[in-house]
Amino acid sequence: MNYKMIFNTLGKVLKIESMLLVLPIIASLCYQEWNICLFIGLSAIISLILGFLLTLTIKPKTTTIYAKEGFITVAFSWIAVSIISALPFTLSGEIPSFIDALFETVSGFTTTGATILTHPENLSRGLLFLRSFNHFIGGMGILVFVMAIIPQSNDKTIHVLRAEMPGPVVDKIVPRSKNTAKILYIIYIGMTALLTILLLCGGMNLFDSITHAFATAGTGGFSNYSTSIANESAYIQWVIAIFMFLYGVNFNIYFLILIGKFKNAIKSKELLTYFLITIVSIIIIALNIYPLFNNLHDTIRHSAFQVSSIISTTGFTTQNINEWNSFAKFTLLILMFIGGCASSTAGGLKVFRVSILFKRISYELKRLIHPNTVEVMTFDGKKIDEQTVNGVTSYFALYIAFILLATLLLSVDGLSIETNITSAISCFNNIGPAFGSSATDYTCYSGFSKIILTFAMLFGRLEIYPLLLALSPYTWLKK
Amino acid sequence: MNYKMIFNTLGKVLKIESMLLVLPIIASLCYQEWNICLFIGLSAIISLILGFLLTLTIKPKTTTIYAKEGFITVAFSWIAVSIISALPFTLSGEIPSFIDALFETVSGFTTTGATILTHPENLSRGLLFLRSFNHFIGGMGILVFVMAIIPQSNDKTIHVLRAEMPGPVVDKIVPRSKNTAKILYIIYIGMTALLTILLLCGGMNLFDSITHAFATAGTGGFSNYSTSIANESAYIQWVIAIFMFLYGVNFNIYFLILIGKFKNAIKSKELLTYFLITIVSIIIIALNIYPLFNNLHDTIRHSAFQVSSIISTTGFTTQNINEWNSFAKFTLLILMFIGGCASSTAGGLKVFRVSILFKRISYELKRLIHPNTVEVMTFDGKKIDEQTVNGVTSYFALYIAFILLATLLLSVDGLSIETNITSAISCFNNIGPAFGSSATDYTCYSGFSKIILTFAMLFGRLEIYPLLLALSPYTWLKK
Repeated sequence: MNYKMIFNTLGKVLKIESMLLVLPIIASLCYQEWNICLFIGLSAIISLILGFLLTLTIKPKTTTIYAKEGFITVAFSWIAVSIISALPFTLSGEIPSFIDALFETVSGFTTTGATILTHPENLSRGLLFLRSFNHFIGGMGILVFVMAIIPQSNDKTIHVLRAEMPGPVVDKIVPRSKNTAKILYIIYIGMTALLTILLLCGGMNLFDSITHAFATAGTGGFSNYSTSIANESAYIQWVIAIFMFLYGVNFNIYFLILIGKFKNAIKSKELLTYFLITIVSIIIIALNIYPLFNNLHDTIRHSAFQVSSIISTTGFTTQNINEWNSFAKFTLLILMFIGGCASSTAGGLKVFRVSILFKRISYELKRLIHPNTVEVMTFDGKKIDEQTVNGVTSYFALYIAFILLATLLLSVDGLSIETNITSAISCFNNIGPAFGSSATDYTCYSGFSKIILTFAMLFGRLEIYPLLLALSPYTWLKK
Repeated sequence: MNYKMIFNTLGKVLKIESMLLVLPIIASLCYQEWNICLFIGLSAIISLILGFLLTLTIKPKTTTIYAKEGFITVAFSWIAVSIISALPFTLSGEIPSFIDALFETVSGFTTTGATILTHPENLSRGLLFLRSFNHFIGGMGILVFVMAIIPQSNDKTIHVLRAEMPGPVVDKIVPRSKNTAKILYIIYIGMTALLTILLLCGGMNLFDSITHAFATAGTGGFSNYSTSIANESAYIQWVIAIFMFLYGVNFNIYFLILIGKFKNAIKSKELLTYFLITIVSIIIIALNIYPLFNNLHDTIRHSAFQVSSIISTTGFTTQNINEWNSFAKFTLLILMFIGGCASSTAGGLKVFRVSILFKRISYELKRLIHPNTVEVMTFDGKKIDEQTVNGVTSYFALYIAFILLATLLLSVDGLSIETNITSAISCFNNIGPAFGSSATDYTCYSGFSKIILTFAMLFGRLEIYPLLLALSPYTWLKK
């Protein structure tokens, strides 16, 4: 294993993280929060020093890396930046427990949006900004960002891209990984800028517009208010609802649109499936919640907002969804499993994986009826090879096993099965809110359970394998 | 498709069912329940007439059948005998609603043991006997029974055996399917006779001994008392606990022991895994429930009984498990997914399938580290071919999809997520008791939900495909 390359890249990531922290430092300076500025600055300096130590002392002989190194680099980087970013919360005393601070930071980076704060309003502006900014960085991926800006990244770095980007298949949009990463970030930043402007037009102040745009872009879901988006105008709720949906779309589609291949873009089966699931869910939930409003526009708006929020795995709310009826709640729970499209900023299983699973089942049924059937599985006109399909089915089994294991460990706290199972599903799929005692925040859980949920969020965002390989003795003991 | 062979076999099944009903008729005669005797007799006559109509009017040109016909025969037969067997409950007025009666009968045949009766004590003896007898017939399978006794069954009938026997791979123990079926039933009846004697020795009366032996044999779980096994002696609880575990073992193991291949029998990996899961679960739950008893023997007995009851998918209880702590409850919920061994009378995913899933995951992990790894998957020293593995992973995806769909449909009644999700899991895996409002009986649900749960039990017992094929338009419209 190319250890040197792993630690050298980790060093680069830490250097970039220290530079990224300049933005929250500026934010806290704007609001004259000197102590917050100091603590974020201190974390940035620690990150910079560690980064230089790693890059200067560890010089890889070769830059060649394989899938294994890609996975481990990603796992280490995410843990490292989470710890760095958690420091200011604890040092400032605004989140005194480091376990809580780490939970909040990991929830930020993994774009979960689960919080241990009952009243985020009490947090200083600098830290509120940092929290949402983590969503923005985590959404597209910090290593994708590193690849986009570091000059010498070579084509082997596709392994890093694959390990960090959500979804079972990651293609380079353009021949060089570096350029792929650049294009993704350009689209991402452009959309976020547009969203910020649209929110400003709706009368939201600049700070809230930027932070909520970050949280929407990463499909994260941290709001600066304990009421989430409930107190905002209908216009703002609609804008956010539409953008949550848009950030759940495969970014390759936007690239196709950018280069003028509009026809190819709208022919995508994954996009169509994602769109249909969303529309059907909005109708089902609207029928269930109509009695709460007795008003068609309100019903459609709240239903569309919540469906878009959950399927894109953002987790903003405009309503106390814990009080919706069981049918509406369980529909949302099923959407938590599905999630957005592959290569988007959304979490969950992804529409692509769910489609492959259903195709696999239908193939199996046909084989039972006609045992000699040989069928080539295709998706969007492209052949899906056996290895990809097996990868998806194995991932699904592992995914269910992890959710069950997380729920079992959470049960130690003695909360209800509903709370534990929905919290595990919500954190693992990077949604945020759950049902039962953790419907708005996760203060109901003990430190032990918060650590379990922190791992669940990381495992979910990185799609299990990177962290599993990094923690597996098999990786370190054998050749 | 060989329609004639399907309906001809269905006719045979109905004739056998009418003969099987003679036993409950005798039971009701013994207790001088003349009206019950009359109604069961009437159902038997209807079954016999329908059977003769089908076998006399439909003569297949060829007896050759394939997997498809096997599946559909099994699905039709199970639905037909369930309806026949539900008639006496409604005709006698003891379960006035036919939906309830069908729920109870399907729960019997599928060996679920979920009941809509709050006080089974109020049921007449004849119907109590019929209820438990259905467990016994459903446990090993009614078509396996038909095959065992009908002279002209040929070797093509392995498809019927495969469709009805639980587990992903069904091998003939001996070259001819007919003899395999016979051997299975001989072992089954022998064990049940032994259990009845052991219960009698513990002071249980003859009627309760027979009915509880039936319910244990089929891993069903219907008791004649609303308290299930709670009021029985420690001896009887231990006997039942051990036999529930034994009925969850692959019956091929008993065949190997019978023919003297004891060494081969105990080398079985599936048996070892099943045993280890049971022991570990008993210890975990004992640690959790110790404070309830403050007594080691009681703790171990209740823990062992409940673990054995749930992993074998029987569903007897000695305690109000709904009041156990969340950790103990969720451990039991995970056991519900696992279930017993393949080719046993137990439900659930089966230890074999769970093992294959974990092997598949571990293979996938190795492939990520060393992309060129080519490994042959083995289990118990035998090569597991790719098709079997793909069958297992597809089955798992379908299984989770069905549980989610069933839970969604149950949500219409507005009960808690905990109640709905555990009821769906419990019925689908043929356990019986769930948590929340359906912890002891299913009276909390509406008629619509009871129909959903009835289908869940059937889909679970027949392992989805037979019923799915029978209900799929694809089977009937295309060639």
